[in-house]
Amino acid sequence: MIQPVTIHYPNGVKFQPQSDNHSGHVKPSLIKHGGRGMTLEQEINESNQYYLSHDIAVIHKKPTPVQIVKVDYPKRSAAVIREAYFRQASTTDYNGVYRGRYIDFDAKETKETTRFPLDNFHQHQVEHMRSCLKQGGICFGLIKFVTLDQLYLLKATDLITYWDAQEQAKGRKSIPLAVFESRAVPIKYSLNPTIAYLDAVDQII
Amino acid sequence: MIQPVTIHYPNGVKFQPQSDNHSGHVKPSLIKHGGRGMTLEQEINESNQYYLSHDIAVIHKKPTPVQIVKVDYPKRSAAVIREAYFRQASTTDYNGVYRGRYIDFDAKETKETTRFPLDNFHQHQVEHMRSCLKQGGICFGLIKFVTLDQLYLLKATDLITYWDAQEQAKGRKSIPLAVFESRAVPIKYSLNPTIAYLDAVDQII
Repeated sequence: MIQPVTIHYPNGVKFQPQSDNHSGHVKPSLIKHGGRGMTLEQEINESNQYYLSHDIAVIHKKPTPVQIVKVDYPKRSAAVIREAYFRQASTTDYNGVYRGRYIDFDAKETKETTRFPLDNFHQHQVEHMRSCLKQGGICFGLIKFVTLDQLYLLKATDLITYWDAQEQAKGRKSIPLAVFESRAVPIKYSLNPTIAYLDAVDQII
Repeated sequence: MIQPVTIHYPNGVKFQPQSDNHSGHVKPSLIKHGGRGMTLEQEINESNQYYLSHDIAVIHKKPTPVQIVKVDYPKRSAAVIREAYFRQASTTDYNGVYRGRYIDFDAKETKETTRFPLDNFHQHQVEHMRSCLKQGGICFGLIKFVTLDQLYLLKATDLITYWDAQEQAKGRKSIPLAVFESRAVPIKYSLNPTIAYLDAVDQII
């Protein structure tokens, strides 16, 4: 028998079905009403759809990893998964190709107004970025300060610098907003794409 | 409410839980006993693990896409998915970065001995490869003739040529083995990695 891996969803946060994988079905109550009424994930998915349809880049969100334990096969209808568990992802959520280059990133939202807490990232995500950087990939975080309605592209190298410094005696557990203002690339909202984050990528490559 | 997307699993094949995402839990009865007793998927995952741990490439299989409808949150234990449906993937199964280049491929097995039926691929997978090629990605199929115990890397451009020719009056619905012998790159089994498919990639870039 397959043993279910009893991993809690990252940060103990309950799963919120969203519009990943272009299903388009979203529980209205789950939509956050910042910006144009979309979550950061929705904004990114919409932008990726724009980039794809305009032959600018091919970037997708990976499906939520699930450990499937029990599946029913009803006659004349689709297979139904009856028991499954969330698994911790071993990589970041988004990757793809842009101008021949490998793109890899994760998106994080914080309600903080003066700093970005590093525990929004997981160790394996940071290690994944470190590995991708070694292979010449373009890695970053898209960080949204939802209360401030500010969105930044933070280079993975900067993220890793702060991540590794946590271990030191007086290491910070967060990245100050001032660091974003000085070192990250701000991303403005637009009509198409919703967030033109590849313009920010152009500035770091 | 979220509407379940009642997509049947590709080709109507029932889901077989495998060792994707490095869970390591595999139903013994589901292991195919060709080659070293592993499915092609397991061989690729093992090879990817080798490439990752040796800083050669970062390539992962994407999780199986699932539409989650109902989740239980029992006290003091992990969330349990109680109703979910398989969705058709909108991309290929594997991607990542190698020598700064974007790598994208899918793996297919056939029991045929003289030809590879094109219906092993889905339209959206071929379109995805077409889009990635436009962005300068390296795209291919890893095709295993299980009865012959032969494994090939077939360039996406060759796959697309045959795919598009299907539409023509006398278009073939399969790619002859002879085409693999003349145009594809054969991959030999080895100890580490199990299948050194990046050696074959080196020959096409």
